[in-house]
Amino acid sequence: MDDAGNARAVEALRWVGDGRSGYAELLDQRLLPEQFVWVPCRTVDATARAIRDMVVRGAPAIGLAAAYGIVLAAQELGDEFSPAGMEPALRTLDAARPTAVNLAWTIRRMRALLPSTPPEDPCGFLLEEARRIGAEDVASNRAMGDLGAALIPGDRARVLTICNTGSLATAGYGTALGVIRSLHHERRLQLVYACETRPYLQGARLTMWELDQEEIPATLITDSMAGWLMKQGRIDAVVAGADRIAANGDTANKIGTYSLAVLAAAHGIPMYIVAPISSVDLDTPDGSAIPIEERSSDEVVMVRGVRIAPEGSRALHPAFDVTPAERITAIVTEKGVVHAPYAEGLRAVCGR
Amino acid sequence: MDDAGNARAVEALRWVGDGRSGYAELLDQRLLPEQFVWVPCRTVDATARAIRDMVVRGAPAIGLAAAYGIVLAAQELGDEFSPAGMEPALRTLDAARPTAVNLAWTIRRMRALLPSTPPEDPCGFLLEEARRIGAEDVASNRAMGDLGAALIPGDRARVLTICNTGSLATAGYGTALGVIRSLHHERRLQLVYACETRPYLQGARLTMWELDQEEIPATLITDSMAGWLMKQGRIDAVVAGADRIAANGDTANKIGTYSLAVLAAAHGIPMYIVAPISSVDLDTPDGSAIPIEERSSDEVVMVRGVRIAPEGSRALHPAFDVTPAERITAIVTEKGVVHAPYAEGLRAVCGR
Repeated sequence: MDDAGNARAVEALRWVGDGRSGYAELLDQRLLPEQFVWVPCRTVDATARAIRDMVVRGAPAIGLAAAYGIVLAAQELGDEFSPAGMEPALRTLDAARPTAVNLAWTIRRMRALLPSTPPEDPCGFLLEEARRIGAEDVASNRAMGDLGAALIPGDRARVLTICNTGSLATAGYGTALGVIRSLHHERRLQLVYACETRPYLQGARLTMWELDQEEIPATLITDSMAGWLMKQGRIDAVVAGADRIAANGDTANKIGTYSLAVLAAAHGIPMYIVAPISSVDLDTPDGSAIPIEERSSDEVVMVRGVRIAPEGSRALHPAFDVTPAERITAIVTEKGVVHAPYAEGLRAVCGR
Repeated sequence: MDDAGNARAVEALRWVGDGRSGYAELLDQRLLPEQFVWVPCRTVDATARAIRDMVVRGAPAIGLAAAYGIVLAAQELGDEFSPAGMEPALRTLDAARPTAVNLAWTIRRMRALLPSTPPEDPCGFLLEEARRIGAEDVASNRAMGDLGAALIPGDRARVLTICNTGSLATAGYGTALGVIRSLHHERRLQLVYACETRPYLQGARLTMWELDQEEIPATLITDSMAGWLMKQGRIDAVVAGADRIAANGDTANKIGTYSLAVLAAAHGIPMYIVAPISSVDLDTPDGSAIPIEERSSDEVVMVRGVRIAPEGSRALHPAFDVTPAERITAIVTEKGVVHAPYAEGLRAVCGR
């Protein structure tokens, strides 16, 4: 972990070189925190595969990776560049993972630009837009962080979170973890409880590592401990990200988020969803219409390469669950905090 | 796992030889399901260490191990046997683990016998009592299994459980898993959902293995998936064991049980605690008086020898939590099913 020592500015992905001949590099999050390895992606297919295989994860980071993938698609077309010629690549990227809507949002945004892309330098032009998406995401996250922190009173906040929603899940700063960063910068954070987030352990591997980089005080718990901590009065707020927010406020996020929301409600603890408006899908009326990705049961039965159940054991692996709007205290977006009833507020922050 | 192939009659521990020169053997549950290794315990200290280090676990199995440990204590005294001489050994065993009360119950029962123990063969006499404890436990478990199964209606029951409460946790058959066995024997079980039960993975490693031995249909889930399955209407009942039941019905059990109880209540799903009366501690008025064992954070940060969080990460490890009586639908004992208010019913089944 030599590289990690001076990796204070944690980042999930970056573009190397110029638009015409450069490529994307993704930090291989499957190997963290043991190894710090950058995976070069020089083709659309390599980028789609990296998204599918979770080299990169986190809804906003997946969106940015797809934007870089679109630059690579333009490179592959070269002089043959045309909006229609880009379609197969856009569809390949779009299909890489089903639940997070930021992927579709990014592709829609980039596709809308294709007719006005200058044929003499499509790659440079599209790379500029990808970089703009990244910069906007960081700015959005900082705004959400401050808005979310303002919802949590007191000088010694103890905040529970799930999965990783920090710099590793976004273009930087983070969504729910951005709220924690803002609380820390305001010197109002006592402690973060990070749910380990089985099966993929994003909390143990990524959030604990990211918080350690910035010396933000954090304690790891198993997902099964959250309710007991709440019962003991040790949690002031729960913050979580979102992979997709339906028009009525129902929110898909990492499996386990729904349980946390029910537990928080039972203990009178606020449950905040923190996500950019690119995670809001006004075309999905409610949570029942959100596709929930089923991943391989091997990811449950094996932990970091070690088998934990007998050979042949069956296991479920829904990667996400849906928290109904009525279990959410507020949804924090970069355009403002939305309260129930969510339909109107979500339309407003999305400018619709 | 050669031995496991014909290990249909799963057992956690056994006595080898006669009282005077025999010894206890414990199946090393830390190594399951990969390895099937019997650990011989020839001294009180070795037995106490095996309990502390979780070679054997599960409240009733711990109790039986302590009973065998008392036979070993008598062996160590030899011709010097006396009730007073046994006290240090009884205290060593009693201190091995704090939360499960069956340990104290067994020691109390054996201690009460010491004044009438024949000096010419104390070991044989005490071994007979230990064997009686084991046989009574199996009979109790069968009774609880049938009583618990009768509470769960229908022919296609889908039952969620946590930790391991089967033959590996008892002298045989099991408590909560005994209910599942009875449902299976009655051909009324569709499926068991086994929570993997972090951090120690008793569900993934032990319950899945035990159910596989008897070809009882089981699906492994992470602890974080339980709420989502309930929300989808895929769980008909939750069954869990107990390490200690206070006089008012508050129940200490594996960390995560409390969350399941809150989630079950929120979804209108019955939550049954299944435990012998040796788990009932009428001297503990309520859950706040139950000592909760804090184990090493290494057991959270390491999974089967593999580190899952950065070096130096802090982690919590309460091994148990307490489910308040009002979250429990019924407590199933071998003397009958107890409903709220529990105080009276628990006294009745305990004959007080």
